[in-house]
Amino acid sequence: MRKIADSTVRRLSLYLRFLERFDAQGTTTISSAELARHGGTTSAQVRKDLSFFGSFGKRGLGYSAAELAVRIRGILGLKRSYRVVLVGAGRIGGALVQYPGFRQRGFHVTAIYDKDAKKVGTRWNGVVVRDVRHIERDLQREPTDIAILVTPADAAQEVADRLVHAGVKAILNFAPVQLAVPNDVVVKSVNMALELETLSFALANR
Amino acid sequence: MRKIADSTVRRLSLYLRFLERFDAQGTTTISSAELARHGGTTSAQVRKDLSFFGSFGKRGLGYSAAELAVRIRGILGLKRSYRVVLVGAGRIGGALVQYPGFRQRGFHVTAIYDKDAKKVGTRWNGVVVRDVRHIERDLQREPTDIAILVTPADAAQEVADRLVHAGVKAILNFAPVQLAVPNDVVVKSVNMALELETLSFALANR
Repeated sequence: MRKIADSTVRRLSLYLRFLERFDAQGTTTISSAELARHGGTTSAQVRKDLSFFGSFGKRGLGYSAAELAVRIRGILGLKRSYRVVLVGAGRIGGALVQYPGFRQRGFHVTAIYDKDAKKVGTRWNGVVVRDVRHIERDLQREPTDIAILVTPADAAQEVADRLVHAGVKAILNFAPVQLAVPNDVVVKSVNMALELETLSFALANR
Repeated sequence: MRKIADSTVRRLSLYLRFLERFDAQGTTTISSAELARHGGTTSAQVRKDLSFFGSFGKRGLGYSAAELAVRIRGILGLKRSYRVVLVGAGRIGGALVQYPGFRQRGFHVTAIYDKDAKKVGTRWNGVVVRDVRHIERDLQREPTDIAILVTPADAAQEVADRLVHAGVKAILNFAPVQLAVPNDVVVKSVNMALELETLSFALANR
C-alpha cells in the first residue's frame, strides 16, 4: 500500500462519522459533494482520498453510505476491537478513561497504571488503578497493542521504553516530549498547550 | 511572511520547550544537532525551520539558548498573554481548565460556559461557570481572542457561529465535527477517538 498521509487518515475518520450518521438516519446513498461539504473539503479531495483504497461508488450515483462505512472501517482497522492501557492517572487521564468515543470505536481501556500509592487500588470508571511497576508482568499476561501515555514529561521516555519492550506497538502520547521508539512502533502526540500555540502563531502572523 | 506548515509550528513549540529547559539548567549555547536530537528530527530540518524567520545562530558556534527562546516566543505570538473562554463544562473541559501548561504559556481561561443550569454558578479551578446564553454580552465586555469548544457534536457549529459573531478569532475544537468559519478565523481540531484511529490505521496497514 502507498504511504498515506496522516491528514488523509483523519479525513477518512471524519467521513466515517458522517456516513454512520447518514446511515442511521436512513440515507442510503451519498455523493462525494455531500461528503466534501461535511468534511470541510472538496469533492475532488474526497474522490482522491477514497481512490487510495481501490474503486468505490458509481459515477453519477454516489456511494452507498452503509457499504462505504464498512469499507472505511476496514481501512482504519476498526473491524476488530483494541485493548488499551493508560499510564498516568491524573486529570487528563481521568477524562480520557471516561471518554465515550473510545469504547464506541472499539478501544477498550483495560488497565490504568500510576506510581502514586494513594491512587493504586482505586477504581476509575470501573477499572482498578494498578502499580506501574507491574506493567511488564501484566502485559505479558494480557498482550495489548495500544497505550495512552499521560505521565509527566520526565517519566515519559522511560515508560515508553518499558511499554515497547513489553510488546506495545502504538502509543498515543500526551506528555510534552518527543518519544524515541523503534521503527515498528507508531507514536502520535497530543499536546494541549502546543495546540493553543498553533492558534497564537496564527493570530500573531495574520 | 511565507505560509508556514503546521508541522513547522509544532516543531518550533517543541524546540522552545527544550531551549527553556537548557536555559534553566545554565546551558548557554546549543547546536542544531542537539535541538534535532531532542525534537526527533534532523539538523538540516532544524536549520530549515529556523530559516523561515531570518538568520539565527553562528556557523560552528550554535545558537544562544536564551536568545533563540526569545525569538521563537516572538514567532509563536507568546510575548503577550491571551484570554481564553471555554465552552462546555464536561469531563474534558474540566481537565483542560486545570491543565497547568496553559497558564505557564500565557493562556488564561477567564470564563467557562455551559447550558446546564446545575453547573452554572459552580466554580471550576477558581472560575465560575456561566450560562452560555450570556456569551455574546460577556464577550462584548471582555473581548477574547481564543475559545476552546468542548460541547457535544450537535451543538458545536451553533456555538462556533456565536463565538465568531462575538469577535473570537481562534477556536480549539474538541467536538467531533468539522466547523465552518469565515476565512479570518482559525480552527484547530482535537479529537481523541480520531487520534486512536490513526493508530489503529497504522497497526492495520503495517
